[in-house]
Amino acid sequence: MNIDMIEAAAKRIEGHARRTPLLTSPFIDKIAGRRVFVKTEALQHTGSFKFRGAWSAVSALEQDALKAGVIAFSSGNHAQGVALAAREYGTSAVIIMPADAPAMKIDNTRALGAEVVLYDRDTEDRDEIGDRLSSERGLTLIKPFDEPLVIAGQGTVGLEIAEQAAELGADANDVLVCCGGGGLTSGIALALEAKAPSLRVRPVEPEHFDDVTRSLAAGEIKRNARTSGSLCDAIITPQPGNVTFPILKRLCGPGLVVPEENCLRAMAVAFSRLKVVLEPGGAVALAAALYHGDQIDGDDVIVVASGGNVDAEVFQMALTKYGQDA
Amino acid sequence: MNIDMIEAAAKRIEGHARRTPLLTSPFIDKIAGRRVFVKTEALQHTGSFKFRGAWSAVSALEQDALKAGVIAFSSGNHAQGVALAAREYGTSAVIIMPADAPAMKIDNTRALGAEVVLYDRDTEDRDEIGDRLSSERGLTLIKPFDEPLVIAGQGTVGLEIAEQAAELGADANDVLVCCGGGGLTSGIALALEAKAPSLRVRPVEPEHFDDVTRSLAAGEIKRNARTSGSLCDAIITPQPGNVTFPILKRLCGPGLVVPEENCLRAMAVAFSRLKVVLEPGGAVALAAALYHGDQIDGDDVIVVASGGNVDAEVFQMALTKYGQDA
Repeated sequence: MNIDMIEAAAKRIEGHARRTPLLTSPFIDKIAGRRVFVKTEALQHTGSFKFRGAWSAVSALEQDALKAGVIAFSSGNHAQGVALAAREYGTSAVIIMPADAPAMKIDNTRALGAEVVLYDRDTEDRDEIGDRLSSERGLTLIKPFDEPLVIAGQGTVGLEIAEQAAELGADANDVLVCCGGGGLTSGIALALEAKAPSLRVRPVEPEHFDDVTRSLAAGEIKRNARTSGSLCDAIITPQPGNVTFPILKRLCGPGLVVPEENCLRAMAVAFSRLKVVLEPGGAVALAAALYHGDQIDGDDVIVVASGGNVDAEVFQMALTKYGQDA
Repeated sequence: MNIDMIEAAAKRIEGHARRTPLLTSPFIDKIAGRRVFVKTEALQHTGSFKFRGAWSAVSALEQDALKAGVIAFSSGNHAQGVALAAREYGTSAVIIMPADAPAMKIDNTRALGAEVVLYDRDTEDRDEIGDRLSSERGLTLIKPFDEPLVIAGQGTVGLEIAEQAAELGADANDVLVCCGGGGLTSGIALALEAKAPSLRVRPVEPEHFDDVTRSLAAGEIKRNARTSGSLCDAIITPQPGNVTFPILKRLCGPGLVVPEENCLRAMAVAFSRLKVVLEPGGAVALAAALYHGDQIDGDDVIVVASGGNVDAEVFQMALTKYGQDA
């Protein structure tokens, strides 16, 4: 896993993934007490950064493997990314999704032409299901984060951050990244190590699902006690990956942990101030910048707003609770 | 009023206004029955395209006039644009706003440092108030649309559309533009006349406030019967301007008129499919593409989503009504 793989992914992705904007707002700066630069991956195709990793992996397949089709397991964002990448390459995709994933994510994945297989997050092992189906049908498994080609694709976010931060004159130390299994976080960390080494990546997680933060503190992989029951469904994973964790450990600063309520509050702020729809799991890094600034270094901060695939009811709840004071 | 003024405005604006993205979604294409390219000015600074015209006008002031300060009348989007441009130039702004403007717009305008003067939309004449205050205090009046420097700034949207449509391979005939007094519409029309003459601008208005559509059909300026009572507050004006109308008449295709309900529905679609917050008046052009496609020519269509400054309650109403089937 190195910068060359990320740059190769960037070449394959060019013209397919969007170069998403780095947004700012004087109102957000005021709340945060410093300038905040928001890398808005909710505006990526399929509504999250996951399209990058999916495209990176699918576009690297040999002809025969491409023809046979791909399989992925995902709470929804990776699912949509793989489904769209597969469709644009004219091949088939099977997606294994938890039965409690947001309805919108399941519907969208089907609408993008994928075959959806649902499983129970608490009683079934998605890795086992994925391995079985892929061997039965000769499909190539595209893992959601613990896969170098996927990490390379997500790392293209970091290449863009390095360029855009320089363009906008961001004087940041910390880059806050919404973190599940660590694919996005490790990819960005590798890209910045090469392109903007003064920037330090810091994973951000929701309360009770802070496996990466605890793993970084302990120096070894720690698991979450629970793997369901969070609004931040996009970034709830059992533990950091075997590929991602060594990268996180080598390159990242300490993790930050954010209460779910602050994610809802940050969604209302993104609505009011950026005109962007964020999902709870895509808002944790912004929440950290807005409400946990005492744990951040530097005059400026960069945050990655990683996705916007949220059901209308959850978004309305955020606005009902926090729309007035955002 | 010509393309040179727009290109000069583009130079002054560079590095200050955002080059907003031209977004697409396969789900939107399916509803519309053709490819739809959405120029997302809701992502502009201050949440609407108005920042462009404001910056264009403020940045063209002589030193003395700049020091004395500016004045503007606006239902809210122009207000915020002028307030921010004035603040960044270190001068003062007085903004005359209707008392029934969305609370968010009034609050934001004040928060951006402007002095806000409220008036009654039905019984008072904002032009009269503006003229009086500007002469009393020596302020330069920056009109919201009927002013060449403002039109030139809005026209930079058209320069970007011409470039981005070519980059993305959009094969469009019609460019649908949310239309109030015609500043954005005439600016884009002038830019496209020079840079992409195969594209034809078509103004889109909400039902009952279709002064431009009727004026174009009649070949002369027609007024609206009412000037308040619409959710599409951003684009409710008494009649097209004396500067804008001749441009609209020379360059635009027929107007389109959209029921308010379809604007709310389009807001829900933009939420689900683009992850972008639109206000009702900023969604009329998308509504026309989605639900009035029989009046549009071409395999593709370009729409301008002009603003996103909407109060949380109105946005929630759109999601409650239409969030499920978007």
